[in-house]
Amino acid sequence: MPDDRRFVLTLSCPDRTGIVARITTFLADIGGWITEAAYHSDEESGRFFTRQEIRADSTSFPVAELRRRFGAVAGELEADSWQVVDSADRKKIVLMVSREGHCLYELLSRWHSGAMPADIGVVIGNRTDLEPVARLFGLPFRHIPVPTDPEGKAQAFEQVRIEAESHQPDAIVLARYMQVIPPSLCQAWEGRLINIHHGFLPSFRGARPYHQAFVRGVKMIGATCHYVTPELDAGPIIDQDVIRVDHAASPARMVRLGRDIEKSVLARGLTYHLEDRVLRDGLRTVVFA
Amino acid sequence: MPDDRRFVLTLSCPDRTGIVARITTFLADIGGWITEAAYHSDEESGRFFTRQEIRADSTSFPVAELRRRFGAVAGELEADSWQVVDSADRKKIVLMVSREGHCLYELLSRWHSGAMPADIGVVIGNRTDLEPVARLFGLPFRHIPVPTDPEGKAQAFEQVRIEAESHQPDAIVLARYMQVIPPSLCQAWEGRLINIHHGFLPSFRGARPYHQAFVRGVKMIGATCHYVTPELDAGPIIDQDVIRVDHAASPARMVRLGRDIEKSVLARGLTYHLEDRVLRDGLRTVVFA
Amino acid sequence: MPDDRRFVLTLSCPDRTGIVARITTFLADIGGWITEAAYHSDEESGRFFTRQEIRADSTSFPVAELRRRFGAVAGELEADSWQVVDSADRKKIVLMVSREGHCLYELLSRWHSGAMPADIGVVIGNRTDLEPVARLFGLPFRHIPVPTDPEGKAQAFEQVRIEAESHQPDAIVLARYMQVIPPSLCQAWEGRLINIHHGFLPSFRGARPYHQAFVRGVKMIGATCHYVTPELDAGPIIDQDVIRVDHAASPARMVRLGRDIEKSVLARGLTYHLEDRVLRDGLRTVVFA
Amino acid sequence: MPDDRRFVLTLSCPDRTGIVARITTFLADIGGWITEAAYHSDEESGRFFTRQEIRADSTSFPVAELRRRFGAVAGELEADSWQVVDSADRKKIVLMVSREGHCLYELLSRWHSGAMPADIGVVIGNRTDLEPVARLFGLPFRHIPVPTDPEGKAQAFEQVRIEAESHQPDAIVLARYMQVIPPSLCQAWEGRLINIHHGFLPSFRGARPYHQAFVRGVKMIGATCHYVTPELDAGPIIDQDVIRVDHAASPARMVRLGRDIEKSVLARGLTYHLEDRVLRDGLRTVVFA
Repeated sequence: MPDDRRFVLTLSCPDRTGIVARITTFLADIGGWITEAAYHSDEESGRFFTRQEIRADSTSFPVAELRRRFGAVAGELEADSWQVVDSADRKKIVLMVSREGHCLYELLSRWHSGAMPADIGVVIGNRTDLEPVARLFGLPFRHIPVPTDPEGKAQAFEQVRIEAESHQPDAIVLARYMQVIPPSLCQAWEGRLINIHHGFLPSFRGARPYHQAFVRGVKMIGATCHYVTPELDAGPIIDQDVIRVDHAASPARMVRLGRDIEKSVLARGLTYHLEDRVLRDGLRTVVFA
Repeated sequence: MPDDRRFVLTLSCPDRTGIVARITTFLADIGGWITEAAYHSDEESGRFFTRQEIRADSTSFPVAELRRRFGAVAGELEADSWQVVDSADRKKIVLMVSREGHCLYELLSRWHSGAMPADIGVVIGNRTDLEPVARLFGLPFRHIPVPTDPEGKAQAFEQVRIEAESHQPDAIVLARYMQVIPPSLCQAWEGRLINIHHGFLPSFRGARPYHQAFVRGVKMIGATCHYVTPELDAGPIIDQDVIRVDHAASPARMVRLGRDIEKSVLARGLTYHLEDRVLRDGLRTVVFA
Repeated sequence: MPDDRRFVLTLSCPDRTGIVARITTFLADIGGWITEAAYHSDEESGRFFTRQEIRADSTSFPVAELRRRFGAVAGELEADSWQVVDSADRKKIVLMVSREGHCLYELLSRWHSGAMPADIGVVIGNRTDLEPVARLFGLPFRHIPVPTDPEGKAQAFEQVRIEAESHQPDAIVLARYMQVIPPSLCQAWEGRLINIHHGFLPSFRGARPYHQAFVRGVKMIGATCHYVTPELDAGPIIDQDVIRVDHAASPARMVRLGRDIEKSVLARGLTYHLEDRVLRDGLRTVVFA
Repeated sequence: MPDDRRFVLTLSCPDRTGIVARITTFLADIGGWITEAAYHSDEESGRFFTRQEIRADSTSFPVAELRRRFGAVAGELEADSWQVVDSADRKKIVLMVSREGHCLYELLSRWHSGAMPADIGVVIGNRTDLEPVARLFGLPFRHIPVPTDPEGKAQAFEQVRIEAESHQPDAIVLARYMQVIPPSLCQAWEGRLINIHHGFLPSFRGARPYHQAFVRGVKMIGATCHYVTPELDAGPIIDQDVIRVDHAASPARMVRLGRDIEKSVLARGLTYHLEDRVLRDGLRTVVFA
């Protein structure tokens, strides 16, 4: 029976000749059995990106030692970002929701069936509508209402921060959470805060994107999974998808049709993130799908 | 052998009970053999739209008489827009181009093979790059350069207007024509002036949409066929399509990939227009595809 | 607040002039407020199909009386199939499963959230793997193992028949149920027995369709929701969808990727069925989506 | 101005540890500036595939010397197939057609506009319907009718063989050529003979695939670009695509809709082939798109 445990190495550095040779020679030298490898040279930014997945049982030393050795290679290559992850370390997730449950059901179903190999620490809601869904799946639900006054709002998000960080999450997922996250939290959770926007960004930022789409008369509607940054709905895009609509699609029908796209795009984007397949390149992402 | 000649009736009016019964009873009374029928009640605008295609040989009278009689029904229904078209009357087209030829090749190939049943009066170019392509297909090419100074530009578009209108066109098609059309012409040709925009509107209006898309890091790029109105890239959308791209797609590659989408969306949108399948509903369109 | 209750009329009959006029005049005469209407004339089979949705509060009489009156129209039109359904009568469903849970989670999530307006009578499994999922959602689970010997198999399916029919189901859904249904049950449940096949039919009928797809080297994989008939995987198709794969997709990866398509196609196909949007036309279906 | 000339190296060999290191070290040693690189390890077949594109001006020696040196590496790796191609050597194409012109127009338009960097030696037709199209684009057309009797047919295909091979083609393209190619020619031109099938293979092999699709009631139709082998419509698939259809699509309408898919899939597949992006893996292909 093959061992499923993997060490995942990711790295981004300035592009130049010989990088792949350097990395693959390093892996060959340690006997690393590569099960998946991906490379990208970005002409515009002049940067290089790679992700290597090797069988954990193909090297004789533990992940910490691999990390130490790969760190030397990363130093040579002047990497601005790199990591070595052990797939045996389960990722941790915090979910944030409001009223719409389709994304929550999707993520909890995947988690419950074992298709999403991660632990969900808590479901946080600014409303209690979806508390029964979290409970159904045996998960703790924390109700943190968000008042409209600035001070109350700040206190609420401080509670959110404390609750979420108590779980040391690798991902905080806004699964149709209908409150704007304060800039300070966006910054604190940069690269870990993931949102599903129910519109094909950069079109239709902000509220009621399906209604905006209807008014504009578009012939396709979509959804966008992206990292959250302080600027609303403008963070790096992880994944998107669309479906065709015609004149017969009312805003209410678009909302219904859009749900299927939203939940699949979010699940896919989150999976990429949890499998360390997403590397940041400024406002863009490199996704080794 | 069945007769392919059709009378096409289109109508839009305020929605109310009994419209379909009124129209179909009218058609049944005159013996009209319906080959295709489509209806749409728009809940938001409270308007009703229909398109009926009947065999020309199923009525005993000519199109003018059918038009007179249907006009009475349209009057009863307080139609704000209606028409009766004889498919034997070939539509006339004027094409406008600049340097990029893929849309021109596509339309001329369809026309030349008989797949687009319309006459092309002239190809107008603000440059001469595509003159050989028009000549190849045996079509007249008219070079009307557009200076940058306001007066010269106004004179150029006056020439464009005279040239185009001399062909009494049912459609003036901007097949990657890279000049902004003056508002007066947009208004004069409202509902007949069709553009292909190389971006998924309303995202990426204006110049260099693929470059905008690259910078924003979107995961799908698209094209939009729309009626032109004085507001740039904001007219009613007829059709759209997208393709998936990933981080490996440079702006230059997006341009290449996008060509296939642009030409197919334009050809499809223009065909809908020529077959009287597009009804206007403010900024939206009803397309009985 | 508008009343959401609808009467849904469906009918198929030999095509001829005046059918739409007859039906819409009938509806206009009884004051029926049409909220959705669809028509299809099939040139090949020479048959006509329609589905009309009217507000229940727009007629003064109950559904039984509407059914009686519409029956007279159906008689005039020599309809071979017609019905009048009251949306207030909730549909009943029986689910059948084996080991793969993604379709079950999808349907139960929709049902639990209220997005699928139907009652689920029971979940029947030939294995117990998914019993906890049914229990999680508070639904009864009935384990009916299917032996391999003919007699044992026949007895098992007799139990299945009795259990399922005790719920008077409008749909019996094979949500990745991995046993072949006996011809007698296929016939007894004709038009109510719905399967999701994890292949793009008619390609890859039978077992292990993803493995078949891999071996054949296809560049897209798909799923098919269809009515079950005695001939394996050959019944009328309700809906299909595909996703693009490339050489990097192993059979195991196809299985993972395919799950998302399977569950969305099944959910969509089942919804069309429950909303009386699917009319049979021999081996083909008319789906008024 | 960057030099666009490239050396393209492709190789397939048994998979083992260290292959990428070996190849990239070789490229680094000769100063090769990699502009595009792709790798694939196939778990099922245990084979490794790669394609490397380097700037021609980044090495100090000509393509023949590069080929000699890379041959040594290929030998070490026990490659079963490898080549080094100079993008400055234009590829040569022979087109074969019958009556349907949409694929021919598409390929000739791309060629004429410079988007397809290859030379077309001749257009061969078993009928003369498309002779005017070839002439329009200034290309020679050779009419070789194919009689139905075995001897006449054999003689005709001998003429086809002589005519085609006189152009030393890198690709012989069946652009809706409606005759079955004899097994001997399929073998002689293996890996160079490319067909567009107007169906989503492996469904609907053989004649009239759209009619087969209609009868079966599928909800999507497609097209398949594949290498031709002696077994009809069963060769390795290069690319496929589909579009959604519904019950309203008659066979004639499917034929019309399908044309757009056929021509884009063929153009894409042929481009991959001409750019040496397609590596054979038995009945499957590795396409480094």
